[in-house]
Amino acid sequence: MSPVSPSLSHRLDGLRSSAIRDLLTLTERPEVIGLAGGLPDEQLMPRDRIARAAEAALADRSRLQYTQSAGWGPLREVLAARESARLGRAVPIAEVFVTHGSQQALSLLGEVLLDPGALVVVEDPAYVGALQVFRAAGARIASVPLDAEGMRVDLLAELLERGERPAVVHTVSNFHNPRGVTMSARRRAELAGLADRYGFWVIEDDPYGELWFDRPAAEPVATYSPNVIRLSSASKILAPSLRAGWMVAPDRVCRAVELLKQGADLCGSALTQQITADLLADTDWLAAHVNTVRSNYGERAKALVGALRERFGNRIVSTDATGGMFVWASFTDDTDTARSLSRAVEHGVAYVPGSAFAVDSDYRSAMRLCFTTFDAPTLREAVDRLARTFGEERDG
Amino acid sequence: MSPVSPSLSHRLDGLRSSAIRDLLTLTERPEVIGLAGGLPDEQLMPRDRIARAAEAALADRSRLQYTQSAGWGPLREVLAARESARLGRAVPIAEVFVTHGSQQALSLLGEVLLDPGALVVVEDPAYVGALQVFRAAGARIASVPLDAEGMRVDLLAELLERGERPAVVHTVSNFHNPRGVTMSARRRAELAGLADRYGFWVIEDDPYGELWFDRPAAEPVATYSPNVIRLSSASKILAPSLRAGWMVAPDRVCRAVELLKQGADLCGSALTQQITADLLADTDWLAAHVNTVRSNYGERAKALVGALRERFGNRIVSTDATGGMFVWASFTDDTDTARSLSRAVEHGVAYVPGSAFAVDSDYRSAMRLCFTTFDAPTLREAVDRLARTFGEERDG
Repeated sequence: MSPVSPSLSHRLDGLRSSAIRDLLTLTERPEVIGLAGGLPDEQLMPRDRIARAAEAALADRSRLQYTQSAGWGPLREVLAARESARLGRAVPIAEVFVTHGSQQALSLLGEVLLDPGALVVVEDPAYVGALQVFRAAGARIASVPLDAEGMRVDLLAELLERGERPAVVHTVSNFHNPRGVTMSARRRAELAGLADRYGFWVIEDDPYGELWFDRPAAEPVATYSPNVIRLSSASKILAPSLRAGWMVAPDRVCRAVELLKQGADLCGSALTQQITADLLADTDWLAAHVNTVRSNYGERAKALVGALRERFGNRIVSTDATGGMFVWASFTDDTDTARSLSRAVEHGVAYVPGSAFAVDSDYRSAMRLCFTTFDAPTLREAVDRLARTFGEERDG
Repeated sequence: MSPVSPSLSHRLDGLRSSAIRDLLTLTERPEVIGLAGGLPDEQLMPRDRIARAAEAALADRSRLQYTQSAGWGPLREVLAARESARLGRAVPIAEVFVTHGSQQALSLLGEVLLDPGALVVVEDPAYVGALQVFRAAGARIASVPLDAEGMRVDLLAELLERGERPAVVHTVSNFHNPRGVTMSARRRAELAGLADRYGFWVIEDDPYGELWFDRPAAEPVATYSPNVIRLSSASKILAPSLRAGWMVAPDRVCRAVELLKQGADLCGSALTQQITADLLADTDWLAAHVNTVRSNYGERAKALVGALRERFGNRIVSTDATGGMFVWASFTDDTDTARSLSRAVEHGVAYVPGSAFAVDSDYRSAMRLCFTTFDAPTLREAVDRLARTFGEERDG
């Protein structure tokens, strides 16, 4: 039988299936409380509203046809209005590009912006979907750690002063996956300033920005510089199966992405794009819907963090969970979360070890916990199981 | 402003927006009978059946969630059954992979099977979406012409005997786009034999196979060799906005494509994939529906070919249009179809000049005509306008 391309195994090494994805299979057993996943809660997805929108969309047969590679026009218009409000400037349609989830935007941007060997700076720990794209593009990866205020922009500045010249700096600016933190306004301005000064692209990857619990996140990094390409998505606020992500980027970047999109998959679905446009344009309904998601997730996050602090005391430092979908919890001793995972599954709970997201650090004592799909009592039970796993046998 | 990747303009040259796509914009004026498009007829798409399937799909909230990268399980099962019947062997689920239209299968296969500089043999004229993918992958392109029996496999054999060693041979085996012809059974067996002997992959790209007018096409090339990767799609028989393509390939190829799909866009839409599965599994309904499409397209094709022969006599040689969506018409004199196009548009008709599909030949006297979206009288009027364009001023 004929061979697969000679360099394929090499390239696949760089694209090894994410540890998280493999874990999801492991932890699908119903007796396990799976905090390892990264899925939004389907019980909170607006099923009936989507069904109404689907029926409306199908009233027009042209929704069954091929659509434009850059996205169905009316969806781009809704997104342009939405992003204009978010960015505080009139975003023209030409700068809005609809992708098959924001992962596709990352993937096409990887092709458009990166030559093999180009330097990409990511946050450490990193969103693994971005790492996968940058590795596949043959980029050289450097990392900058995060703290409670998000990316350590001072360390990025040092890296630039040492003469490193990234083509792209990637940040999950709001409610970071996996680290849970949000970049402060001061650092957003500083990061944009560095992009202007050194001439690199910032990819501001923002799927979670709407999911704030107490107060909205700061203005996007994209408000501070034209060198910022902003990605967002309907997956976390509406439903992943709409496969609606989008990008706000300068016209010439959008046109380059458009040519690649034609080769990649011709176009998206006018049907799911009209459904998305319908829901995003129904602003009063949307505000109420997103509020419901926020308050549910906020309550769950607080239950999880509260139980962690109560059970583990000073042995764990956890993020405050002010938004998004994840809590990052780090043992302050030398607990190895990867080694303990199978024991955790035996105790009926699962998480993702910090090492799965590590770039230059190891994060061996950290774990990512997703709180989106369980109610508060179940999350407290999950923490009880974590306590048994990690030898915190105090009675509850 | 920071630069786009230095090699981007070079790569975009290889990916220049297809001439066909640019023409579509030009010919969207309502007074023009646009035979240049390549769209299935949305009036024949099963809108009501899709609406019922959408409603049924949305009864289960899990259809709103992320799904598997290889495709929603029940759709893969339906496809495995369908392809087992088509290929005359039990196709296991592991060898069925769902893509975002079959264009995505081509694109991911380009990455999986081709190293830069690898040789790809295409048909001449070629499906431009495939050319775009192979050029983007940095492949070296060679071509083999088509005749009334499809790919000139004898010329492929000569090329192999000269020592050329393709990694991939691409064929649109049924009702070729743009050439209209179908590969004969004898040549299918010969092509498969060459693949086995020389160890190359055949990509059998088959979006039109179901759209036969008089009798079904021969057994797929994939029935003759395990070295054939078979692509098909629901776009031409159901609706493009379902974005449902699929691939039947050996397990190791599917697993390599799966890793790339995770980076490319994570997964498809469980919603549109369930709709697709529902319709494909409803075999009695599907048979009747596809029959309706066939008989409509068949009638239109015959009207177009009949009018061409009546109006142009021996000045044009055209395919018989035994299936698919396209007629390929070649002037037997030195008419230059690209030069005449703007005049044709002035006369209210549009086509795609043969040169848009040319690889090594020029096809300057040929044109591709799509008959799918017009009734017989409109197609006869279109041919009258072509006759005026090309100086065949005989009264009808």
